[in-house]
Amino acid sequence: MEQLAKSRGLRFLTNTNDLDHWGRDWTHYFPVNALGVIFPKTVADVSEILKHCHTHRICVVPSGGRTGLVGGAYATQGELILSLSQMNRILDWDPLGLTVKVEAGVIHETLQDYLRPKGFHWPVDLAAKGSCQIGGNLATNAGGVRVIKYGMTRRWVQSLTVVMANGKILELNGDLEKNNTGPCLRDLVIGSEGTLAVIAEARLKVTHLPRQCLTLFAPVENPAAALTLLQSLRECGAPLLAFEFIDKASLDLVLKHCGDPNPFGEFMSDAVLIDLETTDVSDVYAKTALDPRTILGESHSQVQKFWHYREIITEALDSMGFVYKHDVSLPQREIPRFLKTVDQEFSRRFPGATNFVFGHFGDGNLHLNFGYSAKDPDGRRLAHCEAANDWLFNLVHQYRGAISAEHGIGLLKRAYLRFTKSPEELAILHALKKAMDPHAILNPGKGVV
Amino acid sequence: MEQLAKSRGLRFLTNTNDLDHWGRDWTHYFPVNALGVIFPKTVADVSEILKHCHTHRICVVPSGGRTGLVGGAYATQGELILSLSQMNRILDWDPLGLTVKVEAGVIHETLQDYLRPKGFHWPVDLAAKGSCQIGGNLATNAGGVRVIKYGMTRRWVQSLTVVMANGKILELNGDLEKNNTGPCLRDLVIGSEGTLAVIAEARLKVTHLPRQCLTLFAPVENPAAALTLLQSLRECGAPLLAFEFIDKASLDLVLKHCGDPNPFGEFMSDAVLIDLETTDVSDVYAKTALDPRTILGESHSQVQKFWHYREIITEALDSMGFVYKHDVSLPQREIPRFLKTVDQEFSRRFPGATNFVFGHFGDGNLHLNFGYSAKDPDGRRLAHCEAANDWLFNLVHQYRGAISAEHGIGLLKRAYLRFTKSPEELAILHALKKAMDPHAILNPGKGVV
Repeated sequence: MEQLAKSRGLRFLTNTNDLDHWGRDWTHYFPVNALGVIFPKTVADVSEILKHCHTHRICVVPSGGRTGLVGGAYATQGELILSLSQMNRILDWDPLGLTVKVEAGVIHETLQDYLRPKGFHWPVDLAAKGSCQIGGNLATNAGGVRVIKYGMTRRWVQSLTVVMANGKILELNGDLEKNNTGPCLRDLVIGSEGTLAVIAEARLKVTHLPRQCLTLFAPVENPAAALTLLQSLRECGAPLLAFEFIDKASLDLVLKHCGDPNPFGEFMSDAVLIDLETTDVSDVYAKTALDPRTILGESHSQVQKFWHYREIITEALDSMGFVYKHDVSLPQREIPRFLKTVDQEFSRRFPGATNFVFGHFGDGNLHLNFGYSAKDPDGRRLAHCEAANDWLFNLVHQYRGAISAEHGIGLLKRAYLRFTKSPEELAILHALKKAMDPHAILNPGKGVV
Repeated sequence: MEQLAKSRGLRFLTNTNDLDHWGRDWTHYFPVNALGVIFPKTVADVSEILKHCHTHRICVVPSGGRTGLVGGAYATQGELILSLSQMNRILDWDPLGLTVKVEAGVIHETLQDYLRPKGFHWPVDLAAKGSCQIGGNLATNAGGVRVIKYGMTRRWVQSLTVVMANGKILELNGDLEKNNTGPCLRDLVIGSEGTLAVIAEARLKVTHLPRQCLTLFAPVENPAAALTLLQSLRECGAPLLAFEFIDKASLDLVLKHCGDPNPFGEFMSDAVLIDLETTDVSDVYAKTALDPRTILGESHSQVQKFWHYREIITEALDSMGFVYKHDVSLPQREIPRFLKTVDQEFSRRFPGATNFVFGHFGDGNLHLNFGYSAKDPDGRRLAHCEAANDWLFNLVHQYRGAISAEHGIGLLKRAYLRFTKSPEELAILHALKKAMDPHAILNPGKGVV
């Protein structure tokens, strides 16, 4: 590998500190074990590296901004880390087709900064935008807070340039909006967590920035009331950009974390944070059962503060003793019954813990966080929480949900695939993996295949 | 089969007239050869029929409204026609998730009639809406005139219940908006033209009806001018619902067909038909180079008339002597050069013919129609046009286009797959076919696999 790197003039790192830096994502559960990190500069470089790895049966972890939460970018088996971070050019802007072509290593925020002056955005909105890379967003089919309006990442991809495990370069879908010439591998590679092919370049679809946005911060009695509000917003045609739920425990936690008073005065309850693409909410006030304590964000700084509460929850949780995180999705209408069922058993199963619930209720995505005020020095709490996964995922399955709404499978959720994919689906996906990566060199042990 | 039909109480037809009716689509190029037509009433029926066919190696043509234009629903090899038309119930409406669950045989327009009073629509807009069925729309990933705003059919599908070739029933994606548990077979089955599995039920995503719509009918000098106008509309953020191009030859033809005067007076040129989701076009008039002869649709009947011109083109062409149709797509910015290149050779290659060009310019979709005023009694014109496909598809390939934008592959375009899919992609899709339908009983000879 060193020789190949040298001959192509590519950076190649092998010292322990570098491997430890490049070999992990935002989870910190696993020990890193990597062969090295190589930094291709072109699609041809990626192709040559994979050809070499294919021939010599060297396993490869395709690597982006490493902001994932399920260990999908970890090297744990002595793999080569293939970092796309030096392929970070914006290649083409097409104002007619409303697309932008990028290399996989472009930072999410860099792309938005490029598009904003033109009046456009790539409408995938993620907390990790400052460090995550487009290639990783695509490989994980990233979600975020505006899925209710714009859908998942998959919807905003026109075409991909991918490199197969054997080094072959494939152009998937050209630069076409319409192309009905059979099933497209593009949609398979998106969300496959680097297990089917390496995404090297992409042409992304963009759309106009929202013309206006109003933010409401509304107390709600409970999750059921949040959903009643959501339904009445939908019935009056409110142009929803985001509909985020924050339970009482999470709100209390972030207010303490920020040292801020309760914006609703004495009244502490669950809450929802709503963005609407409008300048007029009179209809919303007239036709929905908004709590009278609801606050309409009046200044940019006030709106920023409300969104800061939503975005800082994870940090506030991480500053607790120990927290175990879930990212599940359900049909929206099942959320209240599901949460009640969890509640019924929670204190018995997790004595001393609190279940902090927040997430993208508008699209059925709940983040459950089992938080303890004390640390977990001997890993017993982690083991206890992991042992309860079967219980939780069984419930998710009963309510027709998914064990991962937006984080993916990675290393962390491999053991639980049976709760979410049928044996028949898995058999088909394995046949596909075999056809695309016969020696199983791409991101082994991760994802579905 | 007769016994199976009897035992489950299913309609089963075998007489020649019935086979001829049920065994074809809107193309009329092929002779029908079918075993019979069976009409399942439930998902379990579909499963039992396929189990039987799988065991006895009986090939099956899944069949919807049969409005396709590439022979995808033809029975030509003695197949069993599996008509979903009696599975036509709307099963569930979810006002919270904004989805509707339907059986595959629901007529497109029936669904829209169901949704309209609620203020919603399934935003796939097709000329064949009165007879096409949802299952067929999904199997072909249908396009239509509002792709520029809403995208293709695939985008409006949440989950599928499909029956595999061996009779196994798979639920693909539950009822979930977000589900990041690896690649989803749902997106493979959509657009696979009945070759990978039979779509029995679907949960569809819906959206609010447009609140308002203004229609502009604008003369344009040529295709390049149409695209300049499109770009300036995009730059001023005009909320486009449709952007249709009609060339001079097509406009002249439909006006004569309808016996109407030229709406632009003496001036006859290419034209575009534009729908905008707004009540105010002052910005559009101020910021784009609209021809002063542009007509703003003032009454419902005037708007209907303009759209009638667009929709009646196919009928007007069919009333000519002979017409050979193409449905190609290109990156939008390549359209003018592509059309010029076609023009340069057209009269030499097709003496006596006219190339009628219209289509969904906004999403790069062109319908080219090689029309002759005389009939084609001996099939020589058809053979001549078919022989020229290599020339045309080579050009499409050179301009990075697709040989089918929305009609699919079916029987008609199988011979030309090499212009649009690489050998590597085809190999992967064949492996997938083998995993999903090992005896190749589903819609043989159609589509990609």
